[in-house]
Amino acid sequence: MLLSQINEPKDLKKYSVEELTPIAAEIRQFLIEKLSTTGGHLAPNLGVVELTLALHYHYNSPDDKFLFDVGHQAYVHKILTGRMDKFDTLRKYKGLCGFIKRNESEHDVWEAGHSSTSLSAAMGMALARDFKGDNNKVVAIIGDGALTGGMAFEALNHIGHEQKNLMVVLNDNEMSIAPNVGAMHNYLGKIRSDKTYLRAKDELELLLKKIPAIGDKLAKTAANLKDSLKYMVMNGVLFEELGFTYLGPVDGHDLPKLLDTFRQADNVTGPVLVHVLTTKGKGYTPAEQDSHKWHGITPYKMESGQVLKAVGNPMYTEIFGQTLIELAEQDERIVAVTPAMPGGSGLLKFADRFPTRMIDVGIAEQHAATMCAALALEGMKPVYAVYSTFMQRAYDQIVHDICRQKANVIFAIDRAGFVGADGETHQGVYDIAFMRHIPNMVLMMPKDENELRHMMKTALEYNEGPIAYRYPRVNVVGVPMDKELVSIPIGTWEKVREGEGVAVLAVGPMVQLAEEAADQLKREGVQAAVINARFMKPLDEAMLTELARTHQKLVVMEEATLAGGLGSAILEFYAKQGISGVDIRLMGIPDEFIEHGSIKEQRMEVGLTTDGLIAQIQQLRDDHHFAYGKKTLPS
Amino acid sequence: MLLSQINEPKDLKKYSVEELTPIAAEIRQFLIEKLSTTGGHLAPNLGVVELTLALHYHYNSPDDKFLFDVGHQAYVHKILTGRMDKFDTLRKYKGLCGFIKRNESEHDVWEAGHSSTSLSAAMGMALARDFKGDNNKVVAIIGDGALTGGMAFEALNHIGHEQKNLMVVLNDNEMSIAPNVGAMHNYLGKIRSDKTYLRAKDELELLLKKIPAIGDKLAKTAANLKDSLKYMVMNGVLFEELGFTYLGPVDGHDLPKLLDTFRQADNVTGPVLVHVLTTKGKGYTPAEQDSHKWHGITPYKMESGQVLKAVGNPMYTEIFGQTLIELAEQDERIVAVTPAMPGGSGLLKFADRFPTRMIDVGIAEQHAATMCAALALEGMKPVYAVYSTFMQRAYDQIVHDICRQKANVIFAIDRAGFVGADGETHQGVYDIAFMRHIPNMVLMMPKDENELRHMMKTALEYNEGPIAYRYPRVNVVGVPMDKELVSIPIGTWEKVREGEGVAVLAVGPMVQLAEEAADQLKREGVQAAVINARFMKPLDEAMLTELARTHQKLVVMEEATLAGGLGSAILEFYAKQGISGVDIRLMGIPDEFIEHGSIKEQRMEVGLTTDGLIAQIQQLRDDHHFAYGKKTLPS
Repeated sequence: MLLSQINEPKDLKKYSVEELTPIAAEIRQFLIEKLSTTGGHLAPNLGVVELTLALHYHYNSPDDKFLFDVGHQAYVHKILTGRMDKFDTLRKYKGLCGFIKRNESEHDVWEAGHSSTSLSAAMGMALARDFKGDNNKVVAIIGDGALTGGMAFEALNHIGHEQKNLMVVLNDNEMSIAPNVGAMHNYLGKIRSDKTYLRAKDELELLLKKIPAIGDKLAKTAANLKDSLKYMVMNGVLFEELGFTYLGPVDGHDLPKLLDTFRQADNVTGPVLVHVLTTKGKGYTPAEQDSHKWHGITPYKMESGQVLKAVGNPMYTEIFGQTLIELAEQDERIVAVTPAMPGGSGLLKFADRFPTRMIDVGIAEQHAATMCAALALEGMKPVYAVYSTFMQRAYDQIVHDICRQKANVIFAIDRAGFVGADGETHQGVYDIAFMRHIPNMVLMMPKDENELRHMMKTALEYNEGPIAYRYPRVNVVGVPMDKELVSIPIGTWEKVREGEGVAVLAVGPMVQLAEEAADQLKREGVQAAVINARFMKPLDEAMLTELARTHQKLVVMEEATLAGGLGSAILEFYAKQGISGVDIRLMGIPDEFIEHGSIKEQRMEVGLTTDGLIAQIQQLRDDHHFAYGKKTLPS
Repeated sequence: MLLSQINEPKDLKKYSVEELTPIAAEIRQFLIEKLSTTGGHLAPNLGVVELTLALHYHYNSPDDKFLFDVGHQAYVHKILTGRMDKFDTLRKYKGLCGFIKRNESEHDVWEAGHSSTSLSAAMGMALARDFKGDNNKVVAIIGDGALTGGMAFEALNHIGHEQKNLMVVLNDNEMSIAPNVGAMHNYLGKIRSDKTYLRAKDELELLLKKIPAIGDKLAKTAANLKDSLKYMVMNGVLFEELGFTYLGPVDGHDLPKLLDTFRQADNVTGPVLVHVLTTKGKGYTPAEQDSHKWHGITPYKMESGQVLKAVGNPMYTEIFGQTLIELAEQDERIVAVTPAMPGGSGLLKFADRFPTRMIDVGIAEQHAATMCAALALEGMKPVYAVYSTFMQRAYDQIVHDICRQKANVIFAIDRAGFVGADGETHQGVYDIAFMRHIPNMVLMMPKDENELRHMMKTALEYNEGPIAYRYPRVNVVGVPMDKELVSIPIGTWEKVREGEGVAVLAVGPMVQLAEEAADQLKREGVQAAVINARFMKPLDEAMLTELARTHQKLVVMEEATLAGGLGSAILEFYAKQGISGVDIRLMGIPDEFIEHGSIKEQRMEVGLTTDGLIAQIQQLRDDHHFAYGKKTLPS
């Protein structure tokens, strides 16, 4: 096995170009085998085996900087940089990260998780290099999907203008996670498939030759023409117009051609874009045939490609997708909007049922948000289905276009809370904090799937501005489902366990944990009340006022950042009312980024567990100073 | 005067095309005259007089939808839609808004303030139109500067793909507020100035004619060539490649040509981009000669164009700009980054002094943030100078690229707090709420310009991740300036007035108001303490613990949204410590958007005044239940 002798990129350079082919085969075999037990981003990595090999063969990492956009296609890079033995722990708690991670290796120079950041990073690194007088290469590897994100264009615009030396490898596999959409995609498709460009070039040369006798003036004209005609015969005119030298398209599975192209690129002054055509899932038939499904995959049987079924209830995502179809059957105003996540957001069936009412904008969270505002102002009911973490991209548009104009946009915020194996770049733990301070916003989270459905109805019937329901990346509770959907009065909470002394105000999946804790405490003779704090905004002010009188000891429990969260909103409310005698403890996520692992492990890490809650309640009950509202202070 | 007879767009249609010219002259005269007393966005509006006239003449607002990007160039639109008599109140409290405002007129269908949103809005409106079976036109009017914002590209990519009928008017004046930068700008410049495209077309036709005898096959080749050659001879190839029909460039001050072009555009199926060349400041010599200065202008002498000097101390922005030069003289790692606001951010002198260390990325807040992260990871000290309100665009990049990677990016957040006449779209009142919950962030605000300078030094010497100093859009206090700049210990507050009973924790310019209130109360025999809470994160936990023992009655005063602000952070801290006996009142901005007016009026509207604070302190002092930490609750 050649691969076992490669611990760092320079080991690769001992081999001839021909010998890279068996190494590529070994890498594929390794990935297919390892990921069959761990799961992970199989198809994207199978697509970049030769590309990554060629990069490490031709350039010198870490002096030369490789910036992998998104970073989930960097498994091959990890293999070539000494992390092969860690793949058993891939995406597991304290294990190998599924993305680039600076503290894993000196070869990991830029972290990501969200798309479209690598060009800006490359520009920053190229600028820094030139400021410092270094002469390393900077190479951004970006997919055609990620290229459509607005910030990637901002970077192209800047890079093309400044003319710094850097290389963009456009890894064109015609997919984001789902098949790509958009004009840029169509444009790249034309380059890939349409031979008229090349034919035109040949024909022009023929034509020019046929001109029998041309005078001096005409000869010059012909020369000018030839020069100008690069705009016709060159594939990458769009990139050329933006100031890049375009090279390609080149077969991304042909190692000698890739290496040739890199050599060409090295001779270019200024920014160069290398257009590489790859096949997602390359070399593993099931993944090649359905690269959407195999983008990120759970464990599977290697021989058959049969994916091992997860046991358990369906995910919240599915309930959302089903219910949206039900609602859309009855209400023509509903349109679903997704930023390139039709599958992940549970909207594939919706798209089948209502193809014209399903709008996939590509990786374009900002555009999606503002477009939703306009749709709403014109009387539609856009449902912006978006992961909590990706919604961060649209913060300004939510403030400026949606909330300020009080547009009736419905937000379906998926993967709110911990997200598990994707880890810190994808945690959906900030949306309460970044949305609840925006005027006109209504923010809900259901305690179970039945309530999610009622919230979807609530959102549809609400006409006073934007309204959001957020739901976690977990299996549903498995509660009985109501047939008829009814609106929940805005800003009302629900007492799910009566009690005295301590009351727990819990959000979403935390309600279940709180109920379990209450049940356990009850067996010990302690009656803790549990409130389903299903509106993060507006608060149930009547209930809060009541609680101040009846309980005075509250625990707020949310799977979200403590700073600026629901607990903070409750504290603000009491301060505003001048009610200072309530002893409130906040349970949530402390001020740090929480890395990959299972959701259960992530909750344990921050104490968001039944045991954690019980301990908190015990501690609060033992504090007998509450009647004076004043704890003995450290002197 | 023809203009006085135009109260709505249909009045315009009574006139012949020729009669529009004197109307244009009247509009210019009106604008130059009115704005000489009110100030406002003169140059942008002088540039679009004919364009706006032509749009209203040819189309039927409000059935046809005009979407003005940014919206500060809509004064002509306001004049033509019955608001001429309100221009005396332009940008004044409760007066005519300087931007599009839906509640001002049915012709105002889309509000903005931030740039680059109009294309997404147009797409939303076109989709809604088609869903509803209507057949109105949708027209987005966007500047070449705004076109470089990433979300505009996201929209182009989507629009070009979906092929909905809509029109984009590219108002190309070669400027954002400052002169434009970027590859797109260069590209448009080539269209404007380079005649080779047209020459090539002529020459090609000549060449083809000279071919004496061409066989059938070659004839076909020639035809193919002619077809293909559109890519060479057409100006807008970049837009054509993205799926638009490109028309132009057309002289934006030539009414008949504009109308001709609109007629052509009406015959196009799918999206069309009309490239209009305009001159910012057109028709008023001082504004034409320096359209950067005259973009937004204070009152001036109409005849001479002499701008009336504002009296008073310099703005914080100037202190920032000067100090950055001082620091950069001593530290080569400093680079300044601005998203198209070199002037507004006080960086023009810096750019003169350090042209290569001044990076204007164009309207590209996201790219700027991520590029700064990479610069910092490579050892530079990027200073991202950005208005608070525009930084909203970079929220995700701040979380994902800067804070998560603990990059040493320095944020110079200008216009933090109320901004006055620009109003609700520009208020810098959310940045505390959207930044303080992000791990690794340090957030400061100085009480005066001397402290700002020390904070700039502090930020430069800090190496543990991102750090921000925010400063208001007001004149500085006028305090003596220290010669030597020293680091302020991170997370330390400063007691600026000793007192007992009540302590005021004030942020930035609120410190002055608090000091005035304390002085006034002192004369009445009340000693209120005043704390300069100069770190919004991390908090001065030692002082807070001390205050809980010594005062127990606190007022937090910040010119920022109450929800998620510093007050909220302090409440969280006490909850975390289990300290529940402190009676805290929060003064800040309530949960609503605050419209245009002077900063003083805006502060008065929300009670952020010396009088407001005194009233708050009196009320708190009168509450004698504090010793029990428990207010009598409503029963």
